[in-house]
Amino acid sequence: MIKSTELSPPTSAQLDAKDRLAPYRDYFVEPEGGSVIAYLDGNSLGRPLRVTAANLAAFVQGEWGTSLIRSWDEKWMDEPTAVGDRLGEVVLGAAPGQSFIGDSTSVLLYKLLRAGLDGQPGRNQIVIDRDNFPTDRFIVEGIAAELDAEIVWIDPDPLTGVTAEDVGAVIGPRTAVVLLSHVAYRSGFLADAPTITSMVKAAGGLMMWDISHSIGAVPLELDAWGVDLAVGCTYKYLNGGPGAPALAYVNSSLLSSLRQPIWGWMGAADPFGMSANFEPAATVRRFITGTPPILAMQPLKDMTELIAEVGMDAIREKSIALTEHALALAEELLVPLGAEIASPRDPDRRGSHVSVNHPLFGEVTARLWEQGVIPDFRPPHGLRIGLSPLSTSFAEVQAGIQAIREVLVSLT
Amino acid sequence: MIKSTELSPPTSAQLDAKDRLAPYRDYFVEPEGGSVIAYLDGNSLGRPLRVTAANLAAFVQGEWGTSLIRSWDEKWMDEPTAVGDRLGEVVLGAAPGQSFIGDSTSVLLYKLLRAGLDGQPGRNQIVIDRDNFPTDRFIVEGIAAELDAEIVWIDPDPLTGVTAEDVGAVIGPRTAVVLLSHVAYRSGFLADAPTITSMVKAAGGLMMWDISHSIGAVPLELDAWGVDLAVGCTYKYLNGGPGAPALAYVNSSLLSSLRQPIWGWMGAADPFGMSANFEPAATVRRFITGTPPILAMQPLKDMTELIAEVGMDAIREKSIALTEHALALAEELLVPLGAEIASPRDPDRRGSHVSVNHPLFGEVTARLWEQGVIPDFRPPHGLRIGLSPLSTSFAEVQAGIQAIREVLVSLT
Repeated sequence: MIKSTELSPPTSAQLDAKDRLAPYRDYFVEPEGGSVIAYLDGNSLGRPLRVTAANLAAFVQGEWGTSLIRSWDEKWMDEPTAVGDRLGEVVLGAAPGQSFIGDSTSVLLYKLLRAGLDGQPGRNQIVIDRDNFPTDRFIVEGIAAELDAEIVWIDPDPLTGVTAEDVGAVIGPRTAVVLLSHVAYRSGFLADAPTITSMVKAAGGLMMWDISHSIGAVPLELDAWGVDLAVGCTYKYLNGGPGAPALAYVNSSLLSSLRQPIWGWMGAADPFGMSANFEPAATVRRFITGTPPILAMQPLKDMTELIAEVGMDAIREKSIALTEHALALAEELLVPLGAEIASPRDPDRRGSHVSVNHPLFGEVTARLWEQGVIPDFRPPHGLRIGLSPLSTSFAEVQAGIQAIREVLVSLT
Repeated sequence: MIKSTELSPPTSAQLDAKDRLAPYRDYFVEPEGGSVIAYLDGNSLGRPLRVTAANLAAFVQGEWGTSLIRSWDEKWMDEPTAVGDRLGEVVLGAAPGQSFIGDSTSVLLYKLLRAGLDGQPGRNQIVIDRDNFPTDRFIVEGIAAELDAEIVWIDPDPLTGVTAEDVGAVIGPRTAVVLLSHVAYRSGFLADAPTITSMVKAAGGLMMWDISHSIGAVPLELDAWGVDLAVGCTYKYLNGGPGAPALAYVNSSLLSSLRQPIWGWMGAADPFGMSANFEPAATVRRFITGTPPILAMQPLKDMTELIAEVGMDAIREKSIALTEHALALAEELLVPLGAEIASPRDPDRRGSHVSVNHPLFGEVTARLWEQGVIPDFRPPHGLRIGLSPLSTSFAEVQAGIQAIREVLVSLT
């Protein structure tokens, strides 16, 4: 095993010592019994904040247990859009009135993609890449099957990800919607959202970004980029808890023209009017369907406020330092054992996780989990190292990658 | 004001004294500062159990904060169906493998109704009644618009609700799916589910029940009745918290033939296979779409276990006693002021809430809420008195109805 003193400078200890965001690590729940040595999967499930348990208990006692049904009038009816607007301000670069917390990421993808398609008469092509997250591809596959739309597949280099050139080669007068992931779930590749969005819009298409792997980790400027539609996960870098409801963004220019297919009472102009026919709300609420998941959207509010306190620029700066550190360590400790770096080397093209490939990583991951070192594994042989900026230390990255090396050595 | 001693026997105090379930009232969170005198809206939002705050805190620390992403392997992947199966055993009368916790009630209605329609080639009629809950009607309206299906409307007597005769008059060889509410949200009318289900199936249709207002309050026998599809709300009598995710039931006979339209990764045969094309799971998981709302489904587990301890028969017995008491009091205290009883008098045809109509009830409800007496109001003039069996006392019913009388008197 290589000791930290043998590493090229700066060492993990030095990086942690000068990390201005280091004190925020204590804001997160400490795993019990020293059972976690390195949590490297904040890109999959963010750790809970300490305040979240207390705030949930207060919510049960107060808004739910004391105000009871009155909370709908006092607060909850506006909660999905109020939380959306706050996220718009803090992480999305979005003016109020365009964002809300709704269903699961997958259901929101379905609703917004169908709304987009229906709003593009004469255009029947959905553009997506084969390296996109399965649920994005499956939702597109399902919609294409039911509506007889055509899927135009981009085959990106899995390392460089979907480029502006890739998109330029396939868009045209039949392009209805382009759905891409801002940060690729496997490689961590960060797409050139401003350029691609401009190209798609110039071709008359709607640009829809899946921001699941960037929201809370990578600065976003949805309004400035001219993004039409976006959907993002809140249990990764927004630490909303397992299965937390997702965020959706619909550009204000589309609010009056787009309609989504799942007509529930909470998307109606007058939800309590109990009217005979469905009339969609004039606002972004028209994209809401059922009763909003009020309890489930409480934890992500805590992380949103912490991000507001720290600022996205500082978070991005630490994120880059963490991924640079991880890549340097992987290069030094894992590549000599046959591993391959599967993430961009250019930090400007990288989100907050890195991937490393090795044929034995499936087996390695199972053993790591048992000993409290927790990256995740994506078939066929990718080990993902997720680096949630506010909860991860540089020493943790080092401990994790050293453990990966040790298990890999023991298996070869 | 009429004092309780002037009421016909038995008095509220006598009923509470002999109520075997009375001790369970202490299991629920006490509203702060004596601010709630009578909570009569458990049919809209059930009160939290005391254990729920503690269990949520333990969940944040343990399954989420300590086991972290490992919880998906250890427990969470099976949680939606495990909770569904437990509800099947305790409240649904459903064998394992047919129930799960999924999206909102509205989204589940959409998914199952579309699945049902697609599974009925040659039949294009959806039967629903005009007195059904708005979201049910809106979902049907949206689906009919997109699929060119025909809506066949039943116009029930708002007091007697949808009868077997009403259904018999409209079903036939073109009936694809019949969607009715087991307990009507306004009148509390309890439909004859076994008879109606048999009739619909004999006509070749699929019977889909919205059990939102019966689950946890009225005994259900979905398997024995031969129900095809059911969707139910968990934040009413299952006390799951505001916006808690809903329950769906798909009869095992349909699991291999029905497919739903929103193809997400968690409904795939191998969610982590990251495969190129969508292949639905062979089990009820095929009706799941996105990442299940694990945190949000914790509170309803607490109530499910309490119901298991008490038993649905005892719950139903108290429910009937409470609604009988409410109707007797309304008859005595409100009808003389011009109010009309708008719920069935026959307890066998009634769920766990009663409605009373009066032109001033909109105004009355607003004043009642301020003083901690909390029924709810449904336009145009219905006041609903919801009686959650385990958290409501007979004295509370009396205090509430006396307060309604006082406010009504003050306004006339």
